[in-house]
Amino acid sequence: MKIAVSGKGGVGKTLLASLLSKTFAESGYSVLAIDADPDANLAATLGFPHPEKITPLSEMSALIQERTGARPGQAGAYFKLNPKVDDLPEKYCLEHNGIRLMVMGRIKNGGSGCYCPENSLLRALATHLLLARDEVIILDMEAGIEHLGRATANAVDKLIVVVEPGRRSIETAYRISKLAQDIGLQNIAVVGNKVRSQQDREFLISNLPEFQFLGFIPFDQAIVDADQANRPLLESSQQIIAEVRNIYKALLSTDQTPTKIS
Amino acid sequence: MKIAVSGKGGVGKTLLASLLSKTFAESGYSVLAIDADPDANLAATLGFPHPEKITPLSEMSALIQERTGARPGQAGAYFKLNPKVDDLPEKYCLEHNGIRLMVMGRIKNGGSGCYCPENSLLRALATHLLLARDEVIILDMEAGIEHLGRATANAVDKLIVVVEPGRRSIETAYRISKLAQDIGLQNIAVVGNKVRSQQDREFLISNLPEFQFLGFIPFDQAIVDADQANRPLLESSQQIIAEVRNIYKALLSTDQTPTKIS
Repeated sequence: MKIAVSGKGGVGKTLLASLLSKTFAESGYSVLAIDADPDANLAATLGFPHPEKITPLSEMSALIQERTGARPGQAGAYFKLNPKVDDLPEKYCLEHNGIRLMVMGRIKNGGSGCYCPENSLLRALATHLLLARDEVIILDMEAGIEHLGRATANAVDKLIVVVEPGRRSIETAYRISKLAQDIGLQNIAVVGNKVRSQQDREFLISNLPEFQFLGFIPFDQAIVDADQANRPLLESSQQIIAEVRNIYKALLSTDQTPTKIS
Repeated sequence: MKIAVSGKGGVGKTLLASLLSKTFAESGYSVLAIDADPDANLAATLGFPHPEKITPLSEMSALIQERTGARPGQAGAYFKLNPKVDDLPEKYCLEHNGIRLMVMGRIKNGGSGCYCPENSLLRALATHLLLARDEVIILDMEAGIEHLGRATANAVDKLIVVVEPGRRSIETAYRISKLAQDIGLQNIAVVGNKVRSQQDREFLISNLPEFQFLGFIPFDQAIVDADQANRPLLESSQQIIAEVRNIYKALLSTDQTPTKIS
């Protein structure tokens, strides 16, 4: 199963991606989590030790040059648009608590004409992960779908857009939905996060009438307190864990191409 | 005076940029607000009518081609690295309630070797605005400083990094601070936002010991309610307006090169 998580900055994409990774892994699935948001920190949220020491693939200049034939920053150079990437998941993933992780780094606004060796490598890798890997892939993205394209749209079982009860996150959801339609990606759904009241819930439903809701994650001060105290986030709120488990079940029930359990 | 606002997604960059723009404008300054975050909506927060109809400069293909000599998306084409931009602020800004606004759109991770006509135009424009314009410029950026470079670092009177009482926004502040140091930008300060308690305030101070704090903006449910009800945000919280006024005074008191009052 391939799940992509997007949404406005700060809505809780990384928390949802982390908790979904944990839930799939605990259920016996082989899980590869992909950090594709340079301003997120999936490694830290998943509890990996020393997340600050992880180098994103986009900053591995020697690797990029080896695979694409051009150094990052080499203006006007020729480089391979389809570099070899199938060995990268094994070579460059880290593992912790049964979850494998790759930190991709920033892709530069694909599709609008910005060509460079880093983008070439990251897009080829994203395509490989989505099309050729037989495991649960959970992709934590920026407020867009830069890592996806027409070739991979059908491989995404669900694009989850996380929203919070605020107008800006709704606007971003519509923008992402438009980008998804442009590449032919149909399987889009939303998850409400930081929901404090029935009013919050109704605000989200009434402002996203055409969207499928996979669930509503409550706001829980326990997460904020755990974060400030630097305690592990993923165990800090039982009510959030329970709701993510419901979202996990909803994902499985709509999945048409079940991934093998490892 | 030139002010750049950055910070993690969702911390409140756009609200602070908007309220600062309003405060400067009401004090008689000529203000040009720049929306440089494709996932923000400075126009909406400033109360501009029909913000969804504004086309960002980065999407004006004909303009980009006219000024740089190459179409966006034209791979391998030659284009001008220093296109004419000095007439753009007058031609492409909008005005509402005494505040002028330019919507720039996305710049693609400058400095790491991604060259394209859009970036060339946007960077030239950012440089022009910061170096040659005699007014208050307030730049609402993404979680980085992509629009800035060595040539403009000295022109920025203050880079304000907005933080909220959460570990991820602190990490982003350190990342932005590192990027700022790399280009020689010294005038950096932080503003705490969504501060709910003395504990929140102490969390921020203890985790950012080397940073200058310009102020602490309280969390106010009135902003959330105004947003959900689609009422103007900028008038909805008197306590937030008062605190931004203090930040405005702090900015003026540290400003070495006062901007003329129009």
